[in-house]
Amino acid sequence: METVSRNRSHAGTQCVYSHESSATGTEMTFAVYVPDHVEGEKLPLLWYLSGLTCTHANVMEKGEYRRAASELGLIIVAPDTSPRGQDVPDDSAWDMGQGAGFYVDATEAPWAKNFGMRRYVEQELPELIAAEFPVDMARQGIFGHSMGGHGALTIALRNPGRYKSVSAFSPIVSPIQCPWGKKALGRYLGLDKAAWRDYDACALIEDGARVADILVDQGTADNFLAEQLKPQLLAEACASADIPLTLNMREGYDHSYYFISTFMDDHLRWHAERL
Amino acid sequence: METVSRNRSHAGTQCVYSHESSATGTEMTFAVYVPDHVEGEKLPLLWYLSGLTCTHANVMEKGEYRRAASELGLIIVAPDTSPRGQDVPDDSAWDMGQGAGFYVDATEAPWAKNFGMRRYVEQELPELIAAEFPVDMARQGIFGHSMGGHGALTIALRNPGRYKSVSAFSPIVSPIQCPWGKKALGRYLGLDKAAWRDYDACALIEDGARVADILVDQGTADNFLAEQLKPQLLAEACASADIPLTLNMREGYDHSYYFISTFMDDHLRWHAERL
Repeated sequence: METVSRNRSHAGTQCVYSHESSATGTEMTFAVYVPDHVEGEKLPLLWYLSGLTCTHANVMEKGEYRRAASELGLIIVAPDTSPRGQDVPDDSAWDMGQGAGFYVDATEAPWAKNFGMRRYVEQELPELIAAEFPVDMARQGIFGHSMGGHGALTIALRNPGRYKSVSAFSPIVSPIQCPWGKKALGRYLGLDKAAWRDYDACALIEDGARVADILVDQGTADNFLAEQLKPQLLAEACASADIPLTLNMREGYDHSYYFISTFMDDHLRWHAERL
Repeated sequence: METVSRNRSHAGTQCVYSHESSATGTEMTFAVYVPDHVEGEKLPLLWYLSGLTCTHANVMEKGEYRRAASELGLIIVAPDTSPRGQDVPDDSAWDMGQGAGFYVDATEAPWAKNFGMRRYVEQELPELIAAEFPVDMARQGIFGHSMGGHGALTIALRNPGRYKSVSAFSPIVSPIQCPWGKKALGRYLGLDKAAWRDYDACALIEDGARVADILVDQGTADNFLAEQLKPQLLAEACASADIPLTLNMREGYDHSYYFISTFMDDHLRWHAERL
């Protein structure tokens, strides 16, 4: 693990690291914010998964999470959204390939070799974080934005008990039922849609997966709301499964970090109460 | 004035506009954050001037000012740091030319034609802001970072009474006495150093300019502290002139927006108390 940068901020330290990943066969970069704490203390760990086109840097620069994370004593980890590099398969579209890993383990060529983002985020990176940072792995939460909201919801649903809290900003709640998801899952996983259900929050809930409760914030002026995000599908799935869902529709807010940063404090408090 | 972008954030609206400037002979871009307010209400106006290499966007994306500005009811305007464009003189160094206007009215070739940043920030842009936004021009404050801290201090000192409050993050307090300043003022204003004193906070104070009080935050791990920033020179000038200076040396913080965002709330409250 190599240190890329290290900056003191909000009575804590914002760091960026790179490491060689076996899940992706590439060098991966991630951001970690560690609030000041008593030596030997282990802090709860909150994962933030980013959306299409993003790296670890978008939320680190624009997410405005450090003040509240410092006050609440939360370590925040933000992974990249895909493997990257000249030798890594890509696509000219911004919603496929590098920057668009969709948190899946790809099974189809040419993606299978590098696009192991599920095992990277679920297994490899948690092991590294547990070994290198003052985290209490019994107190983990997960959240994310858009494609990263999809990642957070599906990872929490597939790993019952591991995450004590889950929330999302403007998540893709059902990739099976939206153009971004159909394109990405079709190419990463192939055309057998049975394999897609593991990567669809609504399908996972229909198939019996459960979490304690979910917080979602969604802007009403989000350009992707009707065609791609469809929060009502999650509301319906949660209602059928008796999963308490707090779905806040935020009037006039869009899909950007101007929206996310506005409600970041609320999400950090939601997680802190459960961790 | 054309709208470049408009995003709802923290119960307010973050906008970016462009306009043709007569001070620079170019199109200029600036950011304005307007908190929600009662129709007809006029809000205090706080100017933020950015540092070397920055545009309006750095503080807008990384400054974390909207939450407190919204709570305190402050309009924040962030101008660019220089004229820009293919036809505008530039220099291959990052501390001269485009992105490095130093808030001066250049008198030397080739800079004089476009680098009228003093009259842009002191006259032209305030007139536009007063005409187009719900601002109370009797309640203005000004702050900035590094080169923009120099801008804020010198503009406040040269315009007694216009700004009710002034503060800075890691300001260049005396361009006459640091390499960045000697290079820039020498090339923008020529070698007669008498002309430089109007653009030097310490010299202005020595020459009799006064403000009510000053707040400065400075990181101790700032790479530019000893050679370029030299806050002790401002402390000495203020002591000699009986100007109350609050100079906070922040242990371990650097020159970046990770530092600025940490103390942004303190600065906004400082200004709000005086506006």
